[in-house]
Amino acid sequence: MPKLDLSKIPFQSRTSYPGKLADAVSGRSGQALGDAGGLTQFGVNIVRLEPGGLSSLRHYHMEQDEFAIILSGRCVLIDDNGEHEMLPGDCATWPAGEANGHHLVNKTDAPASFLVVGTRTPTETAFYSDLDMMVKDDENGFSFTRKDGSPLTPDQIGDDND
Amino acid sequence: MPKLDLSKIPFQSRTSYPGKLADAVSGRSGQALGDAGGLTQFGVNIVRLEPGGLSSLRHYHMEQDEFAIILSGRCVLIDDNGEHEMLPGDCATWPAGEANGHHLVNKTDAPASFLVVGTRTPTETAFYSDLDMMVKDDENGFSFTRKDGSPLTPDQIGDDND
Repeated sequence: MPKLDLSKIPFQSRTSYPGKLADAVSGRSGQALGDAGGLTQFGVNIVRLEPGGLSSLRHYHMEQDEFAIILSGRCVLIDDNGEHEMLPGDCATWPAGEANGHHLVNKTDAPASFLVVGTRTPTETAFYSDLDMMVKDDENGFSFTRKDGSPLTPDQIGDDND
Repeated sequence: MPKLDLSKIPFQSRTSYPGKLADAVSGRSGQALGDAGGLTQFGVNIVRLEPGGLSSLRHYHMEQDEFAIILSGRCVLIDDNGEHEMLPGDCATWPAGEANGHHLVNKTDAPASFLVVGTRTPTETAFYSDLDMMVKDDENGFSFTRKDGSPLTPDQIGDDND
């Protein structure tokens, strides 16, 4: 049945960010619509941001196009060019390989939500704009390192006792 | 600038349907958001349906995933399983190769709109559910034929004097 029953798709708070970096997206949860509907070529998610919530650490993708439309509430798109208010119906595109790190931040005191689409590719590299970190994704999963490929340090990600 | 200025993206009424079949989508116009924003891996369009308007002739794709979310108004999703009411926020997915022809129809007396995403692939084949027609897309563009590959007939597409 192509029409999705959104009430049956759980909101999940998952992140692959290592160590204490996961805290950055604690105000984010998402519904995996594309997965629920059998899509494999691109991901489609509805993301809910609690007040203060971030869509991600500010980043850009090397191989995957990305698109978002605001569904409810109000967000701020932060990128290399500053802050841009995003209201319901407002849209943004991030072509693969454009080195303009971005994320959406909910600076209001009410929840906000957006729909985001991203290509699925066998491999991917993304760079983080505000810290010395990159991630590679391949058949072995996500691998976070510094931008020179060396391991992240405890001061970046904390340790088990943090 | 990743945030799109939707007021600068024209609504266009274009179709590749041959002959009189183009009349079927005369109530449809669309904004090519993905193209405007530099995306190449998937298409993103906001489609506006006037009262009585159809999103397309009922069809399914062999190679391309497809997703839609209703933005305003009310549509009916028609597929092999019948009619399904689609209100703002309602979503549907059509995985590549699933032979369930579908389209959205605006049966109300007010405009409706939806956002639709589809993968871009070098080649594509789509089949139409309610008539003996298929379309192939490749480096030479769209080619509409009967499902056995033979040319469409005048009774299907009319002629210049229609």
